Amino acid sequence: MSTKYNPTPSVKHSLDILFHPTSIAHVGASPRHMPGRFSFITYLKSMGYGGMLYPVNPKYDEAMGLKCYPDLASVPGTVDLAIMALPAPLCAGILRGIPEGKVKFVVVHTSGFGEIDKDDLEEELIELAHEKGFRIIGPNCMGIFSQKGKICFWEDQSEFADRPGTVGLISQSGGLSIHVVSGCIDLGIGMDKAVSLGNQIDLSINELLEYMGQDDNIQVISIYVEGVKDGRGFLKSLKVVTPRKPVLVWKGGLTDVGKAASKTHTGSMGGDAEIFTAAMKQAGAILIENFEHMIKTLRLLQPPMRLPGQRLGIVCPGGGNTVSLSDAFANQPNIVIPRLSQQTRDELQAFLPEENVDTKNPVDPGAVGMTKLDQLLRILGKDPQIDSIFMMLTDEIVFHFDNEEARNTVTGMIAALIAEASREIGKPIYAHILHVRDNNEDVFHCRRLMIDKLNEKNIPWTDGSFKEAALAVSRLAGYCKYLERFK
Amino acid sequence: MSTKYNPTPSVKHSLDILFHPTSIAHVGASPRHMPGRFSFITYLKSMGYGGMLYPVNPKYDEAMGLKCYPDLASVPGTVDLAIMALPAPLCAGILRGIPEGKVKFVVVHTSGFGEIDKDDLEEELIELAHEKGFRIIGPNCMGIFSQKGKICFWEDQSEFADRPGTVGLISQSGGLSIHVVSGCIDLGIGMDKAVSLGNQIDLSINELLEYMGQDDNIQVISIYVEGVKDGRGFLKSLKVVTPRKPVLVWKGGLTDVGKAASKTHTGSMGGDAEIFTAAMKQAGAILIENFEHMIKTLRLLQPPMRLPGQRLGIVCPGGGNTVSLSDAFANQPNIVIPRLSQQTRDELQAFLPEENVDTKNPVDPGAVGMTKLDQLLRILGKDPQIDSIFMMLTDEIVFHFDNEEARNTVTGMIAALIAEASREIGKPIYAHILHVRDNNEDVFHCRRLMIDKLNEKNIPWTDGSFKEAALAVSRLAGYCKYLERFK
Repeated sequence: MSTKYNPTPSVKHSLDILFHPTSIAHVGASPRHMPGRFSFITYLKSMGYGGMLYPVNPKYDEAMGLKCYPDLASVPGTVDLAIMALPAPLCAGILRGIPEGKVKFVVVHTSGFGEIDKDDLEEELIELAHEKGFRIIGPNCMGIFSQKGKICFWEDQSEFADRPGTVGLISQSGGLSIHVVSGCIDLGIGMDKAVSLGNQIDLSINELLEYMGQDDNIQVISIYVEGVKDGRGFLKSLKVVTPRKPVLVWKGGLTDVGKAASKTHTGSMGGDAEIFTAAMKQAGAILIENFEHMIKTLRLLQPPMRLPGQRLGIVCPGGGNTVSLSDAFANQPNIVIPRLSQQTRDELQAFLPEENVDTKNPVDPGAVGMTKLDQLLRILGKDPQIDSIFMMLTDEIVFHFDNEEARNTVTGMIAALIAEASREIGKPIYAHILHVRDNNEDVFHCRRLMIDKLNEKNIPWTDGSFKEAALAVSRLAGYCKYLERFK
Repeated sequence: MSTKYNPTPSVKHSLDILFHPTSIAHVGASPRHMPGRFSFITYLKSMGYGGMLYPVNPKYDEAMGLKCYPDLASVPGTVDLAIMALPAPLCAGILRGIPEGKVKFVVVHTSGFGEIDKDDLEEELIELAHEKGFRIIGPNCMGIFSQKGKICFWEDQSEFADRPGTVGLISQSGGLSIHVVSGCIDLGIGMDKAVSLGNQIDLSINELLEYMGQDDNIQVISIYVEGVKDGRGFLKSLKVVTPRKPVLVWKGGLTDVGKAASKTHTGSMGGDAEIFTAAMKQAGAILIENFEHMIKTLRLLQPPMRLPGQRLGIVCPGGGNTVSLSDAFANQPNIVIPRLSQQTRDELQAFLPEENVDTKNPVDPGAVGMTKLDQLLRILGKDPQIDSIFMMLTDEIVFHFDNEEARNTVTGMIAALIAEASREIGKPIYAHILHVRDNNEDVFHCRRLMIDKLNEKNIPWTDGSFKEAALAVSRLAGYCKYLERFK
């Protein structure tokens, strides 16, 4: 990592241009798509990008069916965004050849800079940025995704082409930026913008955080960071943004081994774990522990500002599950599982059988009670002791119906019923899908069906281990607590 | 829970009969299988049970194509195992009608006993057991699974009919016993015996633990417990078994909320979490935190006594993944991620590219290095600093091939290569499959393919979150440490 971090604040291109470029050059383009290699022009085309696309490579006259230019300088007009995908030592040479003002933003996709101690190559780029008037994203990064700007950096992202969303992602890691975007596609979460930042020699997390904080299209910001360059500035930006929208911060390299790996990865030196954690808490960030935690939390934040509060009503069929779920939540801070009011318990007891049920909280309605889910959710939801409901569903609910039409109907009914109950009680209801058989084709199909229906009704859900779900809900509850001070 | 716990040691039927009964009566049988209800005769038939089957129900002459008897007494000959699936208050009446010695084991499947404070019903059963000379499993339980005895208690368990295994399961919870068995089927783990114990008014965890400890068919014992009746006895049994085979203990109700739920579930009162945890550690049990942890650990223990040691060599493609995996393992006790020897690093550097790789430990071989996995594993595996290898695979390895034949070949080659490398270096290699897109049909299919191939080669694997994987490996490493004292 270059020690002489030297951004170029004199270059005041609005980041709006970065996310809505009208012309993109891909320097180092190949004539055709090669599997396993980055093929930005292919990705941009499938995303439906409507601006000018310029492949640049002196070896070819044509690439991906487009005229190919020998260098950046010979591309017609100005270039809003140049993606540099060629060996690190060659990048500066190409950029040196352009006139001032030719290019506005440069994504240096290539690795082989500060992260392997080649700081001189980074300094060269910064000098050129000053001289030629462009901003740098990277190096050692993937680049930019913008749903409305129709730009992206990986093949599956075109699945977002017609699916708008409210998530903004800032990731120092390129690989993880691909994973988080793919994870969002997978869980039916819409994404508005994503930036993979790499070594951050110019455009930084802080600048993007401030930008996304003011961007009304973005309602949740999620960040993966290995090293923060300007810690004080980061905290300041966070404190401005967190009262208005949730900011998820996942810090890689909080352990010594992780820290050593992040030095090699993005040239970052992380700080002390305890100090970082305390600072994030104070700034109202939602601290994220890993990839699964990140995407599960994003799923729970659809819709974004419908938060769980701290007092949960839990519905969980099955005694063992109930014990296990209780243990998972009781081990988390910020969560209260209040005893229900006597009225609620009486009402529950009136329609549940005597055996195989529990009307404390968690409520175990047994198999019979689950068939009366509607009534159950309304009785529980009206209890003034609770802020929201967390309920478990098993794939088996659907699995036992063996024809597709019945399965469709049942899943649709469950989702509609949850959405309607949530509306009526005026509190969020979170669904949790337990995975017992993760690799069974039929179970997988049923789970997909259930998830699609939950997504259609915009019901927040999570799945898999109770422990991970409890962690995610607990961190959101902590955010609710933080927000109280602004009321 | 009956306070007068009063087992019947005078009745000395060997538990061998329980797991290999030659005649089974199902008291409360229905004339035909009804979805969502327990249909033991159907399950036993699909499992290929070869002994005598007697449905008992005074309402019918025939059930499931078999002659139906009005009561237990009128069933011909002796009954090795009677499954009581009728309302709690009726159980004692049926058993009172049989002559002494008629029935050897009684599974009281029904709920509605001590767990809802009906202790008198339990005492009645115990008195009858003394009088008539039978043993009781339950009440409030599922019963018995025995792969070699061809008996089971849930519909999907017949998938084990032709798949022998080495796992023994003892579960206080019925629902979780079904889940753990289903989870094992799903992950390709073979199971030999499973018992769901419920309220444990007679047959207890300790007795089963001792039995399974001496059973050569069982090489790993996994236990789900809510309340231990005879704590000292449990510890004593554990200490006898753990030096010879791994015993996994998952304790439900370690928190106050969980404890309250377990009172309603199986009538158990759990003890203090810290004391329990310390006692388990001292007795050499592998402490399990939840369902996912249980089945993942069982998967890592195939084959059973091939343990990871404490010093891991880690292979993880991708910088962000490497940082994240490092953080996950570095946070766990018992695990050491040693720096590799200079020779190993030199050898790795000689064939890996300069950029996007890391030759410390974890080793990030980059995309290029993963294509030379064979060489990589051998170089790493020969380093005297490490006891075993943990390596990450993504579904994407397979996903990028779009024809089935290529996918089959690639997954088969990877599995064969891992198995062969492990054999050559004489150390276990654990594969980890990251889930980025959990709900995508094509990715699901690729993952299945990879898993099937790993299972065929008997390669231990885990999947999903690094944190959960690191927890599972760390607990196994702790067991390795425990075993050292017996060397």
